[in-house]
Amino acid sequence: MASIKEMDNYAKHWVKEAGEKIRASFETKLNIETKTNPNDLVTNMDKDTEKYFVNKIKKTFPEHRIFGEEGMGNNIQDLKGTVWIIDPIDGTMNFIHQQRNFAISVAVYEDGIGKIGMVYDVVHDELYHAIKGEGAYLNETKLSLLPNVNVDKAIVSINASWVIKNKTINPEILAALVNDVRGTRSYGSATLEMAYIATGRLDAYITMRLAPWDFAAGAILIEETGGKVTDLFGEPLDLVNGSSFFAAKPGLHEAVLEKYIFSK
Amino acid sequence: MASIKEMDNYAKHWVKEAGEKIRASFETKLNIETKTNPNDLVTNMDKDTEKYFVNKIKKTFPEHRIFGEEGMGNNIQDLKGTVWIIDPIDGTMNFIHQQRNFAISVAVYEDGIGKIGMVYDVVHDELYHAIKGEGAYLNETKLSLLPNVNVDKAIVSINASWVIKNKTINPEILAALVNDVRGTRSYGSATLEMAYIATGRLDAYITMRLAPWDFAAGAILIEETGGKVTDLFGEPLDLVNGSSFFAAKPGLHEAVLEKYIFSK
Repeated sequence: MASIKEMDNYAKHWVKEAGEKIRASFETKLNIETKTNPNDLVTNMDKDTEKYFVNKIKKTFPEHRIFGEEGMGNNIQDLKGTVWIIDPIDGTMNFIHQQRNFAISVAVYEDGIGKIGMVYDVVHDELYHAIKGEGAYLNETKLSLLPNVNVDKAIVSINASWVIKNKTINPEILAALVNDVRGTRSYGSATLEMAYIATGRLDAYITMRLAPWDFAAGAILIEETGGKVTDLFGEPLDLVNGSSFFAAKPGLHEAVLEKYIFSK
Repeated sequence: MASIKEMDNYAKHWVKEAGEKIRASFETKLNIETKTNPNDLVTNMDKDTEKYFVNKIKKTFPEHRIFGEEGMGNNIQDLKGTVWIIDPIDGTMNFIHQQRNFAISVAVYEDGIGKIGMVYDVVHDELYHAIKGEGAYLNETKLSLLPNVNVDKAIVSINASWVIKNKTINPEILAALVNDVRGTRSYGSATLEMAYIATGRLDAYITMRLAPWDFAAGAILIEETGGKVTDLFGEPLDLVNGSSFFAAKPGLHEAVLEKYIFSK
């Protein structure tokens, strides 16, 4: 059976190589399609990158299963055994519009437990990576444990769409939080926003709907720095079907649940 | 009298040198104070950087006036003659919390006309710069003219605080826009958001209150790429007292004013 270290080494190598291919693609014209709605975008590079990972993993670890955004891996209904969870380009809209602020996300789960999490900011060559129990790193630098923070000193990543009328949540719940925090941001790449939590650049990140490949790696990074990761109601993430998402520094996580989510 | 080219050369040199000092400061402890409210932050580096520019400009161009965020220049009531407008660190909250996503902003105005605009993303060593009439650049690369874009394909930078109840604008006006666009973002540095417009990474940026040093340079960058810059009601920016701010790609600017701002 493959060791975690062995998988970690392969994953790092593949992530870097996939990143090189993506950077090289900036010179060529993208082929852009829409998926579930006009703003759900996919490019040939999302597909090519997932194909790259699927080929590498199948060849190297034929007994492992693969759960990827573009559906080129297995049909995953549970997380038994070893499962690679992959978002080839998280933040495709940023990739298309900005050619920055997107990332590759790769995670390895064993029987549902997150063992390896990697988020690669391709343009800035910043690899955020963690092995469960061994802490999290940005490139070669070990990340510090996150300190507690209060609501009034917090910078929270939350998109404006969750505080206007929407189909998912009463906008007043999160509007009250937006009103009380020091500032809000929104970067448009869930995995980078999670990397920002792990590095302490953001204090919390809230969004109403993510897929497993959006948070599989980021959740490991955050937990390895002492942050808390749940859905918006404090329940464990659903790694098969996806869920809402709420990550925060310790202390802040409990305070937000108590004062904003459960008080309404 | 100093030529624009001469001032531009000095400004570039000073901006880079100030950036080096800021990068070096990451290793030392910041001294953080608050200004008008608990979230209006200033550090010793904001002050030291403004002092650096004021000293350099006074020595090199003693007849020029200086209008800076930290108030170390002149008491500016009009823009007669040559005025340097400086924000030593735009995005101080990001500077403190993230050590990235902030910028130095330097502009030169002659009798109220913007001649030189420079925004320096210190951490990424990206200098966005323009001389009026000569186009805008990111480092050595000339930026393309911005194409027209429609509302439904636009990525708009707008902070969540402007679509919740606030003292400045009826939140429903901008909520309607947020609902219709492709996506929203918020980076927390007005000058970088303007640089993002000039490069085409964002299609529009709206905020309700900026000071002259926040937009003096960015407005020049955007105009040199064919973008439109006004206050939120389509009126010229107030470069002495500050104002609301609305920049967008051509076409989009007119559409937003007509469909969202003037229709309410």
